[in-house]
Amino acid sequence: MEKVKDIKWNDGMKVSDLTERMGNIGFQATELKKATDIITEMKRSGAKTYFTFTSNMVTSGLRGLFAQMIKLGIVDVVVTTTGGIEEDIMKATGENFLIGEYRTDDVALHEKGMNRIGNLLITNESYSKFEDYMLPILKKIYGKKKRLTVTELLREIGLMLDDEDSILYQAARKNVPIFCPAITDGSLGFHLYMFQQDYPDFVVDVVRDFSTLLSSSSYDDKKGVIALGGGVSKHHAIFGLLLNGGCDYAVYMTTSRTYSGSMGGATPNESKTWGKVKVDANEVSVIGDVSITFPLVIMRAMDVMKKEGLIKDE
Amino acid sequence: MEKVKDIKWNDGMKVSDLTERMGNIGFQATELKKATDIITEMKRSGAKTYFTFTSNMVTSGLRGLFAQMIKLGIVDVVVTTTGGIEEDIMKATGENFLIGEYRTDDVALHEKGMNRIGNLLITNESYSKFEDYMLPILKKIYGKKKRLTVTELLREIGLMLDDEDSILYQAARKNVPIFCPAITDGSLGFHLYMFQQDYPDFVVDVVRDFSTLLSSSSYDDKKGVIALGGGVSKHHAIFGLLLNGGCDYAVYMTTSRTYSGSMGGATPNESKTWGKVKVDANEVSVIGDVSITFPLVIMRAMDVMKKEGLIKDE
Amino acid sequence: MEKVKDIKWNDGMKVSDLTERMGNIGFQATELKKATDIITEMKRSGAKTYFTFTSNMVTSGLRGLFAQMIKLGIVDVVVTTTGGIEEDIMKATGENFLIGEYRTDDVALHEKGMNRIGNLLITNESYSKFEDYMLPILKKIYGKKKRLTVTELLREIGLMLDDEDSILYQAARKNVPIFCPAITDGSLGFHLYMFQQDYPDFVVDVVRDFSTLLSSSSYDDKKGVIALGGGVSKHHAIFGLLLNGGCDYAVYMTTSRTYSGSMGGATPNESKTWGKVKVDANEVSVIGDVSITFPLVIMRAMDVMKKEGLIKDE
Amino acid sequence: MEKVKDIKWNDGMKVSDLTERMGNIGFQATELKKATDIITEMKRSGAKTYFTFTSNMVTSGLRGLFAQMIKLGIVDVVVTTTGGIEEDIMKATGENFLIGEYRTDDVALHEKGMNRIGNLLITNESYSKFEDYMLPILKKIYGKKKRLTVTELLREIGLMLDDEDSILYQAARKNVPIFCPAITDGSLGFHLYMFQQDYPDFVVDVVRDFSTLLSSSSYDDKKGVIALGGGVSKHHAIFGLLLNGGCDYAVYMTTSRTYSGSMGGATPNESKTWGKVKVDANEVSVIGDVSITFPLVIMRAMDVMKKEGLIKDE
Repeated sequence: MEKVKDIKWNDGMKVSDLTERMGNIGFQATELKKATDIITEMKRSGAKTYFTFTSNMVTSGLRGLFAQMIKLGIVDVVVTTTGGIEEDIMKATGENFLIGEYRTDDVALHEKGMNRIGNLLITNESYSKFEDYMLPILKKIYGKKKRLTVTELLREIGLMLDDEDSILYQAARKNVPIFCPAITDGSLGFHLYMFQQDYPDFVVDVVRDFSTLLSSSSYDDKKGVIALGGGVSKHHAIFGLLLNGGCDYAVYMTTSRTYSGSMGGATPNESKTWGKVKVDANEVSVIGDVSITFPLVIMRAMDVMKKEGLIKDE
Repeated sequence: MEKVKDIKWNDGMKVSDLTERMGNIGFQATELKKATDIITEMKRSGAKTYFTFTSNMVTSGLRGLFAQMIKLGIVDVVVTTTGGIEEDIMKATGENFLIGEYRTDDVALHEKGMNRIGNLLITNESYSKFEDYMLPILKKIYGKKKRLTVTELLREIGLMLDDEDSILYQAARKNVPIFCPAITDGSLGFHLYMFQQDYPDFVVDVVRDFSTLLSSSSYDDKKGVIALGGGVSKHHAIFGLLLNGGCDYAVYMTTSRTYSGSMGGATPNESKTWGKVKVDANEVSVIGDVSITFPLVIMRAMDVMKKEGLIKDE
Repeated sequence: MEKVKDIKWNDGMKVSDLTERMGNIGFQATELKKATDIITEMKRSGAKTYFTFTSNMVTSGLRGLFAQMIKLGIVDVVVTTTGGIEEDIMKATGENFLIGEYRTDDVALHEKGMNRIGNLLITNESYSKFEDYMLPILKKIYGKKKRLTVTELLREIGLMLDDEDSILYQAARKNVPIFCPAITDGSLGFHLYMFQQDYPDFVVDVVRDFSTLLSSSSYDDKKGVIALGGGVSKHHAIFGLLLNGGCDYAVYMTTSRTYSGSMGGATPNESKTWGKVKVDANEVSVIGDVSITFPLVIMRAMDVMKKEGLIKDE
Repeated sequence: MEKVKDIKWNDGMKVSDLTERMGNIGFQATELKKATDIITEMKRSGAKTYFTFTSNMVTSGLRGLFAQMIKLGIVDVVVTTTGGIEEDIMKATGENFLIGEYRTDDVALHEKGMNRIGNLLITNESYSKFEDYMLPILKKIYGKKKRLTVTELLREIGLMLDDEDSILYQAARKNVPIFCPAITDGSLGFHLYMFQQDYPDFVVDVVRDFSTLLSSSSYDDKKGVIALGGGVSKHHAIFGLLLNGGCDYAVYMTTSRTYSGSMGGATPNESKTWGKVKVDANEVSVIGDVSITFPLVIMRAMDVMKKEGLIKDE
């Protein structure tokens, strides 16, 4: 067994070194170090990598990191929720989100047209501009195809964006499918609906996307998942993996715990009973807000991959 | 201001009395008492009531209570996830779920074909039977209509069930729409997909269901929401309410907290900035596992409604 | 294995019946039902019962229930923190605590001399009166004995109180020792210090109380613990049990989880490695705010004990 | 208001840079960045700095960092629990703690004499050696003084240790008092008790230590607190600060939330009502396991202090 080792400060320590040493601190620091090792191993093995996150993470500054991971070939399949799609597009078209406070005058914010998500703010104006942006785009896409799956729709949108830090932009260029099973659950749903009012033969075929999910890793020997948060995003990825034989590597990072039976709190062990995660998989659960934990995990993994030549394009 | 009052045991206390007294205990007990008052007031005002829950709650024994609430006219709109639909159907067709342990030999469970959700178990056999049950049903529905919204699909299924304790059964009979924006995220999605392989003109039109959502409370003066847990279910309801002017009553019951910006942790105050909850709404957040907190809240509310003649059909 | 059973409302349900049915709901409801069974079994076996709680629970309305449990012989040893002692005395001498809000104008509260604990409030005036009350009491006690252990000190105070709902009052009458290892951590510490300034030979001998702890269950065949919350209170009880051979019954009720290695989050399983809980003990952990969960657990246990004649004095 | 800025990986990023950029990520990352700024400001202002932590953090590899902070003059007063004292001494006398698993065969661990705290392990042997080490030390201390306060006792022990990474060693050399209000709550309590059996005039005077607490910052213009975790350690520090006029800087880092009224979950805002934290204080709460969050916070603070010449001795 490894020993606990006292950590100490030295001037100018690198993130990689801190993450490395966390392995010997104990508690969640130790699990975090395991996560970085598992992700590195996932890439070494050439595993098809599923990556899931919730919309609040796209609201946050993690979005650029997610886009960069797609660009550098670290992830192969993405699953998220509608809010994540919308906010990626808003940012790609120049909108800015603001840093606020958790405890604030919410009535005043409402009157100023500022919508709060924890300590972040999105203005009503950003939503208006999003509407203005989406309608012509939907027309163009409809011009090409009248019945699309969600992954097709998101790919088409991504191809029209022009922002290196955009998840949709990078995914479209790298042929990374973005699944969003609850595509209508947000403003985008409203815009799709308004569009369909004018063009009744416009169909978003969620059912046919199941075929995309099934084939997403059916020919892959090794598979892995990095699930940030819970909900439909996490479930859709691990359910897809179940249908393809289960994954060999699983990193779950969440603030939820197992006691109420929630998806966010479901551990890799629980997933093993379902066959979503293989019984002999290399897996870990890291408890904590990903705005802090994920940069530590992925930045060391990327430093190591870089050194080992696992990151090609930069 | 109210005073803290010491609670004491007396032999054979009623649930209503305990919940009532909880108002003066403090901490979450006090919030729980507020929740029961807000729900009672919601019904007194005739507010259109949205009710959301996650699939694990349908796995649990709360499902019968949910069905009963629909039967007795306490809720008018339901939002849930695919797992909740599947498990309601499984139970309605005679399947049983089992009580297990959180900490158990998960590899052994996997080998026995038992899938774990916290301390509950669903067998692989229940999923097989669900498949056998669904295919002929989809054929019948397709015979009537080739392009359906999700609410239409779930209503058709509900009409074919025969179980008083079923959510879909009661909802179909009471004209309560069940929204499930991520309908393909589960076995049901797979069965829909397999069916569509044989009948390519079968379309589940998620986009058109937006019209159902928009009209779900557009003519209602007062609106309320009871949201158990977070995720897409909660978001879809409060987003629908936003489009219809926001709600006057909000009861959020969850294990999530606000610090990571999750939907589960979003408070009524946060929702006010968006206009999902009106700025002067009567609202509360109760932190805790709903398997414990919800029966306390709703049972006192129902005792009071019964007394006040607000429950008609029994 | 037990089956999940759907719960339903019926008018006027009793707390005992709800708690009983919770066993078949799943998730924490199932664990809560186990807790009530273990406590009942603890009493049937005649186990020496340790009961621990934190000061905020005494601030809350649970205090009367705790006192009643001591009065009815349900617990034999109590461990708490200084705040719990102070607030029990304040209430016993007529002070009232108020119900406030979690989210409030804290600067305004400070200016009004109102101190907040979650959604509860204690006035500065209550602290002043506590000081006025304590000084003559300490003089009387010093008149009897100059060097006391903490359990002796708290017993002497309890004997001077006159309130049926007081923990110290009932404990003194029932010869239930109250351990408070961090006795100086609060106003009481300040008053003891001021008193010692005038009477330097006044000694609170915390070390000698270890003998009381050691003998608290050294002759008992069976031992049990009901630990509400974590911290020093929980640790002191289970550490005392370790020294006496470990306990046979353990009910831990807490909002903390195991991932950060905290005492509050320590599970009965973790305690087994230490020998604090016997390896074959009957044990459970219930996650949730005790202001809600504990009344459910103990009220059913007391209804059953009453029926079985295990409650003598009433 | 600050904008959300997308973070991206670059090879070999420094911890300071990551922590700096976290300010613009949002959610807890933003709060973490505030914490590092407040600690830096605390030192710039020359504030008397209280530092509190729980015993599990000393079990972990954070202990060396804590000792280093004392050595470099970053903290002036320490508060912890008995377990923290014991484990610091064990490590100082050559004992090693091990990295295990959260989910493990606890009965097997018990049989092997391995005690678990989350995913860390301490052997029974380490406790035996601790006993062998303490008895002669207590004799030496008794030879010098028969009635000591806890801070005096811990200072005497610290002077006998010889380990740069020890909290007690550094505190003794830097005249940093270590408060431990529940000194008997652990093995150390047992050893003190056994010693007192032979030397009945040996007294640990917890009451007189209140004078040390009162004088700990009575002449300081500015005061600050860094509280890791909750319980008695946190309460004792902020209660001491209350008696000295409240603090100007407060950083609370915890996994607990406010909803159950616990000390761990008490926010700086709640503390303001009591006067523990001044109403205009610079304060923040960071939610997360300190094994991950604290190194990020303190390492950037130390890099900045080093640059500004605020760290003298190295």
